[in-house]
Amino acid sequence: MTETPPTRAEQTGTEQAGSAPGTGPTGAAEPAGGDRYVVGVDFGTLSGRAVVVRVRDGEEIATAVHGYPHAVIEERLPGTGRPLPPDWALQHPEDWREVLRTAVPEALAASGVDASDVIGIATDFTACTVLPVRTDGTPLAELPEWAARPHAWPKLWKHHAAQPQADRINALAHARGEKWIHRYGGRISAEWQYAKALQVLEEDPQVYAACERWIEAADWIVWQLTGTESRNTCTAGYKGIHQDGAYPDEDYLAALNPGFADFARTRLEHPLLPLGSRAGSLTAEAAAWTGLPEGIAVAAGNVDAHVAAPAARAVDNGQLLAIMGTSTCHVVNGAALADVPGICGVVDGGIVAGSYGYEAGQSAVGDIFAWWLRQGVPAEYLAEAEATGEDLHRLLSRRIADQPVGGHGLIALDWMGGNRSVLVDHHLSGVIVGLTLATRPEEVYRALLEATAYGTRTIVEALEEGGVPVTEFVVAGGLKKNALLMQIYADVLRRPVSLAASEQGPALGSAIHAAVAAGAHPDVRTAAAAMGRVHRHAYLPDEARADAYDALYAEYRALHDHFGTGPDKQLHRLRAIRNAALTAHRTSEDR
Amino acid sequence: MTETPPTRAEQTGTEQAGSAPGTGPTGAAEPAGGDRYVVGVDFGTLSGRAVVVRVRDGEEIATAVHGYPHAVIEERLPGTGRPLPPDWALQHPEDWREVLRTAVPEALAASGVDASDVIGIATDFTACTVLPVRTDGTPLAELPEWAARPHAWPKLWKHHAAQPQADRINALAHARGEKWIHRYGGRISAEWQYAKALQVLEEDPQVYAACERWIEAADWIVWQLTGTESRNTCTAGYKGIHQDGAYPDEDYLAALNPGFADFARTRLEHPLLPLGSRAGSLTAEAAAWTGLPEGIAVAAGNVDAHVAAPAARAVDNGQLLAIMGTSTCHVVNGAALADVPGICGVVDGGIVAGSYGYEAGQSAVGDIFAWWLRQGVPAEYLAEAEATGEDLHRLLSRRIADQPVGGHGLIALDWMGGNRSVLVDHHLSGVIVGLTLATRPEEVYRALLEATAYGTRTIVEALEEGGVPVTEFVVAGGLKKNALLMQIYADVLRRPVSLAASEQGPALGSAIHAAVAAGAHPDVRTAAAAMGRVHRHAYLPDEARADAYDALYAEYRALHDHFGTGPDKQLHRLRAIRNAALTAHRTSEDR
Repeated sequence: MTETPPTRAEQTGTEQAGSAPGTGPTGAAEPAGGDRYVVGVDFGTLSGRAVVVRVRDGEEIATAVHGYPHAVIEERLPGTGRPLPPDWALQHPEDWREVLRTAVPEALAASGVDASDVIGIATDFTACTVLPVRTDGTPLAELPEWAARPHAWPKLWKHHAAQPQADRINALAHARGEKWIHRYGGRISAEWQYAKALQVLEEDPQVYAACERWIEAADWIVWQLTGTESRNTCTAGYKGIHQDGAYPDEDYLAALNPGFADFARTRLEHPLLPLGSRAGSLTAEAAAWTGLPEGIAVAAGNVDAHVAAPAARAVDNGQLLAIMGTSTCHVVNGAALADVPGICGVVDGGIVAGSYGYEAGQSAVGDIFAWWLRQGVPAEYLAEAEATGEDLHRLLSRRIADQPVGGHGLIALDWMGGNRSVLVDHHLSGVIVGLTLATRPEEVYRALLEATAYGTRTIVEALEEGGVPVTEFVVAGGLKKNALLMQIYADVLRRPVSLAASEQGPALGSAIHAAVAAGAHPDVRTAAAAMGRVHRHAYLPDEARADAYDALYAEYRALHDHFGTGPDKQLHRLRAIRNAALTAHRTSEDR
Repeated sequence: MTETPPTRAEQTGTEQAGSAPGTGPTGAAEPAGGDRYVVGVDFGTLSGRAVVVRVRDGEEIATAVHGYPHAVIEERLPGTGRPLPPDWALQHPEDWREVLRTAVPEALAASGVDASDVIGIATDFTACTVLPVRTDGTPLAELPEWAARPHAWPKLWKHHAAQPQADRINALAHARGEKWIHRYGGRISAEWQYAKALQVLEEDPQVYAACERWIEAADWIVWQLTGTESRNTCTAGYKGIHQDGAYPDEDYLAALNPGFADFARTRLEHPLLPLGSRAGSLTAEAAAWTGLPEGIAVAAGNVDAHVAAPAARAVDNGQLLAIMGTSTCHVVNGAALADVPGICGVVDGGIVAGSYGYEAGQSAVGDIFAWWLRQGVPAEYLAEAEATGEDLHRLLSRRIADQPVGGHGLIALDWMGGNRSVLVDHHLSGVIVGLTLATRPEEVYRALLEATAYGTRTIVEALEEGGVPVTEFVVAGGLKKNALLMQIYADVLRRPVSLAASEQGPALGSAIHAAVAAGAHPDVRTAAAAMGRVHRHAYLPDEARADAYDALYAEYRALHDHFGTGPDKQLHRLRAIRNAALTAHRTSEDR
């Protein structure tokens, strides 16, 4: 989930600083005789990452990363150059296949592992990233007759143009008393399968008619590996409104739009696979792409956030894992089923079988910090960074780390990418208040770090108030390396922060699932104990700072409530004004 | 009022593009025989500027600028290095004398004018910039026994630490029904004489006791030129609460603080001079400093904003002059006395004798744009600016000028320096809403330009609703060169924007007052007709853009009212949290 350069492969150290007791390092650079390996592949927002992992102890032997050539398609459609409306975000399916053809063989080569010792592969994906395909799995975007139609393309998770559809989905569900709506915090996100599909139907019915199957990229990539369609419990539950064994019924869907009545039956319905199960075997074609043996186990599809929980050993009830990168996903298991307002969803076995898996999220986190740095920093800061060799994150952190809490006088709302939890509103936008002529870039930077911590605290409090205890806060993802950020989270949450030891939590998590699918471990919990790693309580809260943050968190909540839940929908109006102005302008430019 | 480098002198062209009909250029580079000249000196926030002007037609022969070595003293007191609390802003009186000793002789030398042909000098100053002095005019800050005491130093106009005193001044005035309070829009600013003096009394009573006279820098600099104390109608009226011939009475002052009862009587009271009158004659000492003849006329002190009106020929009732630089001052004459909520003040003859002079203001304008650029811009923008030779203002303007109105989705509150009108609250701060991950630096830049235009519209509407017609909008000051900004003002105000022709409106205005003080013109209006210049209707509003801005202005007002006048004083709380945190931190650092 963090930004990465184009393909690179590296051999990771065999001595892992983070090794937990009982999973000691092997000390052997060469694979020991008789050991078996699995490959995990994590499909992020900008790149895919493959890791080769030893089944016995989770040792990460080597990794390789491949950046997507088309990255995120937001402005113009590839090929035609046709301009996209505001809030769109697409991806190119061929970019994903390229990861299988490049990153996997590169990681394998770098590992020194004999391909014949690899017994399984598993993948995880951003979600809800979803695409229309034919019954043979061919994406409409790759068919010449549809390639020029924007709605034929895969919609990335952060495609935020289906908010009107989401609003109707929610209003109707509440009006009809659909019981599933409470499993999703009371609001289905505009990011998810139904809002995105309904947008296709209503804006380009011909594409919708040509769409024979509507499938998560998480399942589509498994289809590429096994040659047959499969669907997994996790995305079906969290993104596909599959609850208590069924999708929303046809009456409900028809009331949304008569043409939508058979959507679930015709385009989604398929047996669901539990996480860690074997979806099928690697085809000859996929074996040729990856350099892996034909016929090895391919695990059921999974989501980047949920798959990471066993990698951080965060599989017990109450252990909340925050996967912090460009965005943050929060996953936590609970013993009981509870309806928590504003969370993304709760799914039986959605993270690990035997528990209710709760998911919440923040649409933008590292993206916000990167956005601020893209605005630029003073020339003397750039010169300083060049002189010291620091990246700008480190430079700004160093300049501001010693400021007393509240010393910048700022409060920000972390909604530059909308709000996934607990407001579930992607037409919200970011706010900064308290700016003065003395405000420095590092002060805004810190205020943005803090804003995301306040957003996380809002989610943790919602979970606990909703009946889901949070006993430990564990962080995975690229942002765990930002020490200032981690300390702020500890202080704002007034809790210790534990860190997943792996640098590639989702990819390792996928590898763990691959090991289970291949039968090397009996279940995910057992595999997590053998292969996962965590640094417990790496950051501890400071009482005085926590007290000071309590006052600032109250200010955040005041701002949050004014702009997020108050009667004045100013941010919605500004978004509508913006979109109307830009749409009119782009249309006139293209005439 | 714009930032300038250290001293530089230049000969200005004798052909003025902006010459108005009937004041044709002379075409002669050398002073014509028999011509007489005057010197105007404008004391700004960061520098002083002298201009040599021909009395006959206002031709600006030469100018020179001298930057203050100590600039604005905000962090630590000179000499001792003693840290200053938040919101303080001081200046050094010797910096001001240096302008007389450097900029004036340099301008004279550059002009080629014979000093004996100079018949008068006049000055204008930022206000309320005010200092404690002895009865001989010596600043306490220059006496060894007081130099280490922050309160002994001149308080610059933007010293914003006396808000608690201002709050009490206002509450008491309303409680007692003081009729003068309505002359100041209902609120006396924390920037003005009484709040600042009361802060001295209450925070350092010894300095207050040693302060024999409390005097505007506008009058103090005239004291340096003439050797005798004088006071002018303008600052006494606008900043000193002198109305209907009297200062606030002793009962009122005693109720504020018993020690403050005799403040006006002992430290302010003095005959007031009308603007353009002769305060005295240039002393031998000041003649030596400036290179001007001893005994020439020295005009009464004046304020940089008000003095500029005749330079732009904005002296008729209804002609609003906005002097736009680091901050903006608005001055406009009216035929009748009206109480306008939130303006800075109305003073009989406060701009030109015979009219009621209304003043309003925005505490930060160009300062806000400069603040944003100080945050930094992307490295590729810097490279582009270097390649094209543009300054960053021009680069950002070019990048954003063609975006449709509302296309950035942003609204900002222009309160990074507090709000002078119409809220009169310097513990407010800036706000930006509508930020997304797609927001670019030039979009924020434009939103800030627009925010200041909305702030100006708020003031213009308050004047008109209060009974002061505004028939023309005239701009002087450094920002008139920003074409995007001027067009935005025309569109937001839905009015033509006229431009003062002179590049140094206040200095030329001072020169016009010097000519009147020297008897070369009978009064300021006559002198303005001969010596002032304006480009009428340089920018015209576009109806479609003006319509679009009406919708955005409504959003600005919604934000303005929520943060500025609503029940939730969030910005005040954030300021209090910030100041407490920083004060505790600085104190602990200095231990």
